[in-house]
Amino acid sequence: MLLWRDGAVRETTVSAFDLADRGLLLADGVFDTLLVLNGQPFRAEAHRARLLGDAAALGFAIDPAAVEAAVGALAAAIGDGVVRVTATRGPGPRGLRPPAEPTPSLFATAAPLTPGLMFRPVRLAISPIRRNETSPTSRHKTLAYLDSVMAAEAAARAGFDDALMLNAAGRVACGTMANVFAVFGRRLVTPPVADGVLPGILRAEVVAAAAEAGLAAEERPLTPDELVRADGAFLTNSVRLVSPVTAVGTAAFAGAADAAIAAIAGVVRGRVAKACGAALPA
Amino acid sequence: MLLWRDGAVRETTVSAFDLADRGLLLADGVFDTLLVLNGQPFRAEAHRARLLGDAAALGFAIDPAAVEAAVGALAAAIGDGVVRVTATRGPGPRGLRPPAEPTPSLFATAAPLTPGLMFRPVRLAISPIRRNETSPTSRHKTLAYLDSVMAAEAAARAGFDDALMLNAAGRVACGTMANVFAVFGRRLVTPPVADGVLPGILRAEVVAAAAEAGLAAEERPLTPDELVRADGAFLTNSVRLVSPVTAVGTAAFAGAADAAIAAIAGVVRGRVAKACGAALPA
Repeated sequence: MLLWRDGAVRETTVSAFDLADRGLLLADGVFDTLLVLNGQPFRAEAHRARLLGDAAALGFAIDPAAVEAAVGALAAAIGDGVVRVTATRGPGPRGLRPPAEPTPSLFATAAPLTPGLMFRPVRLAISPIRRNETSPTSRHKTLAYLDSVMAAEAAARAGFDDALMLNAAGRVACGTMANVFAVFGRRLVTPPVADGVLPGILRAEVVAAAAEAGLAAEERPLTPDELVRADGAFLTNSVRLVSPVTAVGTAAFAGAADAAIAAIAGVVRGRVAKACGAALPA
Repeated sequence: MLLWRDGAVRETTVSAFDLADRGLLLADGVFDTLLVLNGQPFRAEAHRARLLGDAAALGFAIDPAAVEAAVGALAAAIGDGVVRVTATRGPGPRGLRPPAEPTPSLFATAAPLTPGLMFRPVRLAISPIRRNETSPTSRHKTLAYLDSVMAAEAAARAGFDDALMLNAAGRVACGTMANVFAVFGRRLVTPPVADGVLPGILRAEVVAAAAEAGLAAEERPLTPDELVRADGAFLTNSVRLVSPVTAVGTAAFAGAADAAIAAIAGVVRGRVAKACGAALPA
């Protein structure tokens, strides 16, 4: 894994770090993960804007030029891979209250692509851990990611690929690291941010690209019953792009939406290839 | 702030650290905070047992001898202060899934006591951020602490000392870093762990010490209405010990429970003084 810090790319992730950093002690920070192909990050501006917005929601500022430099340097170094940018509020005194003048920490890592992850179909368990839509951590990509870690781990132990998370009200929210879309005929439905959902960059891409695939996309609340009775479903995230959902718990999809999912996956594949100037890995 | 790491106490918290550590990237870790007086940690065994149990709940092991060494070394160095032990699952590859063989990270810090914090009365805002009782992070002291950070910050901006957090079901849970007790005559009521509450060491101390103060303590669900109609309330945590609550939102307590709260605070003060062999700061 490559590390960018203080303007330099290094081959090791071990670095001098203040262990009083609030990102480490209190999950007081944000991150962003983006896809790089052919040395070109996909939708870098949208990713950067969300990261800066997430930090602003927590009450600290990130230097956009530093983020751009980190992503650019790691994208050039990794060629095809995944870049993660992490920004914390920086070190602080004991206790919850942040310092009046925070000195945020910024670093980024890059790793090679995991072969076969893009467009891979997934079977989802329904997690007993609910997504907390009353918490800002449900709609901002913060370091408080342990619920997703535990939900994914329990799903894997039960033989599933990932977990579907409902919110406290019992409505469909998202995967542990992905947005979810249900397919009804030619209509795509994805839950609104207010239901405890991250405004994913690929989620926005799919909404914007739906018409190109002959589909209509709509944001509205979705119940688990509606989801399992849909023609099909898929997850979106910035690395896996479009992951067809083959089953939710014991309910398997019959394949009625396969053509629609293939159509949106094809459009997304084309947009990524065009933006990065490279064919996607098979 | 003093840092313990790898067996040594240092005067700086800056240290070589793997920035791929899952504690930093995903809040995948646990911590514990304990009070030290006269070089003696209060209830070190109970704190250590909870820390090890929290890590086990996340699926990784901590060496109890290393925790004991860290707390002992920092307690001796700080004299009167607060020691925080942090343990993470350690570094991992990209993504949510932990490595099959984790190599946990352990470090600890010590800071002097903040004068006047013990037994200080507090006014509480009711936070719009709910405590998620479906999440293991509600009953284990994990690094996913951002909800509490944001709830405390919003309360402070609104002129309160701390926030009261309700759970998703609308029942009383806790403060942002403290358990809560309501006082009804000579009865103390504190919400059960199942309602999204950390099993605090001071919470257990108060339950155990209640009879000594002429009080009866009970764990049961508590509604916000019951709380504001109680004779009084207090928070407990390992540093502040017993903090009388003077108001919840716009509802001030009339003082009917002042004698009961003073009685339990006095018993706790005596137990801490006895265990540490030192008078508490005024």
